[in-house]
Amino acid sequence: MQKLIAAPLNPTWNVIPKTADEWKAQVNASAAATFETLPALRQELHVKVEPLTIDGVKAYMVTPENIPAENHNRLLVHVHGGCYVFSPGEAGTREAIFMAGFGRFKIISVDYRMPPDHPYPAALDDAMTVWKAAVKMASPKNMAIFGSSAGGALTLSMVLRAKKDNLPLPAAIAPGTPMSDLTDAGDSFHTNAMLDNVLVAPNALCDAGAGIYANGHDLKDPMLSPIYGDMSGFPPTILTTGTRDLLLSSTVRVHRKLRQAGVEALLQVYEAQSHAQFMRDTSAPETKEAFEEIARFFDKHLGR
Amino acid sequence: MQKLIAAPLNPTWNVIPKTADEWKAQVNASAAATFETLPALRQELHVKVEPLTIDGVKAYMVTPENIPAENHNRLLVHVHGGCYVFSPGEAGTREAIFMAGFGRFKIISVDYRMPPDHPYPAALDDAMTVWKAAVKMASPKNMAIFGSSAGGALTLSMVLRAKKDNLPLPAAIAPGTPMSDLTDAGDSFHTNAMLDNVLVAPNALCDAGAGIYANGHDLKDPMLSPIYGDMSGFPPTILTTGTRDLLLSSTVRVHRKLRQAGVEALLQVYEAQSHAQFMRDTSAPETKEAFEEIARFFDKHLGR
Repeated sequence: MQKLIAAPLNPTWNVIPKTADEWKAQVNASAAATFETLPALRQELHVKVEPLTIDGVKAYMVTPENIPAENHNRLLVHVHGGCYVFSPGEAGTREAIFMAGFGRFKIISVDYRMPPDHPYPAALDDAMTVWKAAVKMASPKNMAIFGSSAGGALTLSMVLRAKKDNLPLPAAIAPGTPMSDLTDAGDSFHTNAMLDNVLVAPNALCDAGAGIYANGHDLKDPMLSPIYGDMSGFPPTILTTGTRDLLLSSTVRVHRKLRQAGVEALLQVYEAQSHAQFMRDTSAPETKEAFEEIARFFDKHLGR
Repeated sequence: MQKLIAAPLNPTWNVIPKTADEWKAQVNASAAATFETLPALRQELHVKVEPLTIDGVKAYMVTPENIPAENHNRLLVHVHGGCYVFSPGEAGTREAIFMAGFGRFKIISVDYRMPPDHPYPAALDDAMTVWKAAVKMASPKNMAIFGSSAGGALTLSMVLRAKKDNLPLPAAIAPGTPMSDLTDAGDSFHTNAMLDNVLVAPNALCDAGAGIYANGHDLKDPMLSPIYGDMSGFPPTILTTGTRDLLLSSTVRVHRKLRQAGVEALLQVYEAQSHAQFMRDTSAPETKEAFEEIARFFDKHLGR
């Protein structure tokens, strides 16, 4: 993990596309690079990934080679990160492969539509379409939703939306370093600026991606910035971040808000890690630790 | 809480006494200022403080006016903070008054001996003398140990020492922002330097206090830097810190180490707070929140 922490700043942190075509070029270049890493990752973690379509929404079924007995009737739903604009297609499955490998759960990873072609609420709509179908494949008591960064915010927004629409809630959720406040109100947007070597600073590439996703909607809408939502009745929640994470505040503020609402909520903060570095390198002991904490939390709260 | 967060740097953060007499003068001036705040604090929180001596060690019995039925047979032991050199006498009871007021527990607050006259291991010896006596006043299953900063480290060291000496362990502990690593190895000693307006930076006043306490002993001795101790078998632990705390890393590293040892450990990180600001102002909602989280944790884990 020290290698990732000591790495130079992400070279594209402030390379902001100006047009829809420029966005697509940058997103596709990034996705192509990720795509190349997937066969080795799946092989190493003994995980199979198969495309499927669920009520018109693209997704992937991510399955570990050996599913332990206690997880046979359990099903997770994954919403990937990438500032609401990166990681289309299979590139979005990386985190789900980590979770399937370290936690040995079956997972549906949602390949939600993204801007520039499909801004808000397309991503959330797609995720909810999958959720509505998924709760017929398994008991919601045996299910969890997880994802990091934009996927962490989508995880929280999905629960807000499920509450609003009187849909079944999952038994647990694991938002990793959620983009919970698109207004960048948290203190760590300032204190960790230029220290976080992944997101680096506010008002840069990732915020630009969130901007084309929001597409003019009020950034304080809880479906875009779930920190402003009513978190009463949320399922048990495990949150993950690092001390250098630009979204450290966006994570701890969600933790406090959940606790204030009486929700069982666990906070995991990893020493010196920047944004979402816990899901980068399978060989780092901290990666295994982070995913095993989440898996243990799910095992505690999910029915069988 | 915003007022405390926005306050200028602690004016004495880098005023380091050169002689034993200079230390005593600075410590006494600080204690006298704290002493003046105590009558109003006790009155506001409806807490009574009485001096006592336990097997030769000075201490205070800190008692809330109304003790709820579930806390009648419970007893907490408090070890105060102050860089191992500040807050002698009644000045050390502030945090215990907060806990008695917000949590309504009976508390023994240890007025342990301190340098320059009494360096390590006097403080820990005194705390253990009180612990050994206290476990005869109540069942250790109904007891907890808590304290912040140097008191957080002493809380952890007391458990290490109780394990070593085959003494009963408390049912829970609450180390607040513990000085768990006197070698200053954590990342936040650098990333939060000059941001934390209480401790401000490493190698300043507080480290100087820890230095005269350590008095030449190896700073990696787990009884001085409990991060280097074996935390297996520790009781359930709740840790408290803030995102700007110079000891953020010293807190999250203890949390990770406890979790790695399979201990139930909860981490509470408050937005934008510097070192131990959760125990400064009774009127801040965040203060009530922090102490009520700890009280709830004790209520869950302590017998009746």
